[in-house]
Amino acid sequence: MAGNQEHKLCMVPGPIEFHEDVLTALSTPSQSHVSPDFIPVFGECFGLLRKLLFTDKGQPFIVAGSGTLGWDMVASNLVEQGEDALVLNSGYFGDSFTTCLETYGAKVTQVHAQIGDRPTIESIHEALSQNTFKIVTITHVDTSTGVLSDIKAISELVHKASPNTLVVVDGVCSVGCEEIRMDEWGLDVVMTASQKAIGVPPGLSILVASERAINIFKGRKSPITSYYASWHNWLPIMNAYEAKRPSYFATPPVQMIYGLHTSLKQITATSLEARFEQHKKVSDAIKRTFDELGLKMLPKSLDIAAHGMTAAYYPEGIQAPDLLRKMLAHNIVAAGGLHRAIASKYFRIGHMGISVVESERKHIEQVLDALKASLHELGYKKA
Amino acid sequence: MAGNQEHKLCMVPGPIEFHEDVLTALSTPSQSHVSPDFIPVFGECFGLLRKLLFTDKGQPFIVAGSGTLGWDMVASNLVEQGEDALVLNSGYFGDSFTTCLETYGAKVTQVHAQIGDRPTIESIHEALSQNTFKIVTITHVDTSTGVLSDIKAISELVHKASPNTLVVVDGVCSVGCEEIRMDEWGLDVVMTASQKAIGVPPGLSILVASERAINIFKGRKSPITSYYASWHNWLPIMNAYEAKRPSYFATPPVQMIYGLHTSLKQITATSLEARFEQHKKVSDAIKRTFDELGLKMLPKSLDIAAHGMTAAYYPEGIQAPDLLRKMLAHNIVAAGGLHRAIASKYFRIGHMGISVVESERKHIEQVLDALKASLHELGYKKA
Ligand SMILES: Cc1ncc(COP(=O)(O)O)c(C=O)c1O
Ligand SMILES: Cc1ncc(COP(=O)(O)O)c(C=O)c1O
Repeated sequence: MAGNQEHKLCMVPGPIEFHEDVLTALSTPSQSHVSPDFIPVFGECFGLLRKLLFTDKGQPFIVAGSGTLGWDMVASNLVEQGEDALVLNSGYFGDSFTTCLETYGAKVTQVHAQIGDRPTIESIHEALSQNTFKIVTITHVDTSTGVLSDIKAISELVHKASPNTLVVVDGVCSVGCEEIRMDEWGLDVVMTASQKAIGVPPGLSILVASERAINIFKGRKSPITSYYASWHNWLPIMNAYEAKRPSYFATPPVQMIYGLHTSLKQITATSLEARFEQHKKVSDAIKRTFDELGLKMLPKSLDIAAHGMTAAYYPEGIQAPDLLRKMLAHNIVAAGGLHRAIASKYFRIGHMGISVVESERKHIEQVLDALKASLHELGYKKA
Repeated sequence: MAGNQEHKLCMVPGPIEFHEDVLTALSTPSQSHVSPDFIPVFGECFGLLRKLLFTDKGQPFIVAGSGTLGWDMVASNLVEQGEDALVLNSGYFGDSFTTCLETYGAKVTQVHAQIGDRPTIESIHEALSQNTFKIVTITHVDTSTGVLSDIKAISELVHKASPNTLVVVDGVCSVGCEEIRMDEWGLDVVMTASQKAIGVPPGLSILVASERAINIFKGRKSPITSYYASWHNWLPIMNAYEAKRPSYFATPPVQMIYGLHTSLKQITATSLEARFEQHKKVSDAIKRTFDELGLKMLPKSLDIAAHGMTAAYYPEGIQAPDLLRKMLAHNIVAAGGLHRAIASKYFRIGHMGISVVESERKHIEQVLDALKASLHELGYKKA
């Protein structure tokens, strides 16, 4: 949308800016969900998702919904009534995942971190030693705080301390911008949504389950208590489309899937390692600028900060909505706070996808320029 | 897409052909789901849906998902464990709604109709006299058979015979092409999806609940056993957007909602009565042509046939996929059968939305011409 004066750059931590080709794909004229034109497009998305997550046998689910629906899938398919779940809580989204799990009858234990921190390996070890959990959930990037969890190390710990426990990653704010090696790291579920680093408008719930998770699901004793989230309904459909056969449970969102296909093709066309590296590099530069400006970031140190977003407190003397309003006047949409305890005290920017990997768009420069100009206009001076 | 040689007309009973302006709306560049640009667009959709369903106080829910998710909403919000539900079953979709209700713990009684028929008023009366049901569900148009139910008469009957029973209409294949007067007819839930007569790509679950239904939901004794389908989560969000305030439970599908807004504006810009009349007129003409061609339709008589689709048996000597293949060669996508008992024996065409109300597109002529030509090429002669 370069040159479109009216478009304000959407630099929140999701939805992100979308590639023109993705937007064009969304306006694909109508096709039947079981037409020979659409089936291979949907069918190819499964392999592309596996590639993105470095998994050979992971089973993707692509369903009309949003990231939240992935929690329902985990809670209703993998946990049975009264079973224990351990939630590693690094912010808002850990709270919500907990509520979702409890809704389906899980008994949830949480390991809480202070705002801006993540549960320590010791505290996780401690929790694992006190009970046997069916699943452990980790918010890879908690979008409310910008804290990044070390899913590789945690997964290793869980596999050692509690080999039968499934490792579930909420990757809504990380898939596509942070390295995730599902097979190598032993992750059982990675769930995400379309609108963040995958670079497609909101409207898709995307989840990949390991063979082990699928087997646990298949071996359930009690019936699944959701209909729309039930893998019993979706698994045959996913398998059929991947095998390029028509099938029907509920109408797939054809145009959204065209968008997904376009974006996944773009993402996987070049080195994923380079993609993740680029997100790191840009993130580091942004965080350096925040530092230089004297803005205090939420994550307590750089090594636990996400690479696709930055969250920072408003400096003293600057009121909650003022900075966002100023930035909007500079054509940049940033986001306010989300963590319930401090929502009015901080703001967030997203830096994922084309805004990062297509540097010629100059999105990052525009955000930082707008931030500096806005602070200046608000009379801010570094303490 | 007139003039686009490559596009095959999608004349299945959903997804239907979409207006160019709707497709363009889908490629709206990224906007935050809580931006001042998007909020009023989402906010206006509620009033537009009320207008379409002739209701003053009905509460719309617009959620990323598909029509199926509406069943989960009904089953999880309105029926408590062990409560009785009566499903008036006129085909495939009654079966599925039953399964969904049972998944959430409802005790389902069904009134079955023969294929091509609908439950009689007497059989419904009889069922209502034998038990007290929390809800009665009616598939307005069963897309598997093309049978239209008389929701007005049934609702009247239910209100008389069992005043506390909620009347739930599956309007996935009727909202936007059949008259539905929610308030006047005393309907408590009308649920639908985006991809049929509403004229927007698949990806939205749309449901409108009466004040009475919302009160029943609010007065529940047991907790709601779904997270993603829970009105506790969605109701405050719907109210906030309608009041033009930002709010968050799960990211709404921004681009899809732009498409919905565009289509609902188009639909409600002219007389709804004329719209429904036009669907009737076109449907009658199509069915007359089928008759003339000697094609036997599934509905046992014209007065119980839907006006947005036509389902007919393959004539003797014509094999299941041949007719569809021939029609495809004429650039028309039609649908096969869906009703489990006879799936390979019949085919379906959809005639909803712009294909019907924008006659200058000549979609209907193209379908009928393709049908006649295909039958001819297959050596068919009227018996
Ligand atoms: C970490 C995380 N988990 C889950 C979600 C929920 O996804 P959605 O809003 O698409 O339902 C979000 C949304 O921002 C998120 O950031
Ligand atoms: C009458 C009816 N109900 C429910 C559904 C389910 O809707 P969806 O396929 O969007 O999940 C359909 C889909 O065709 C339908 O025709």
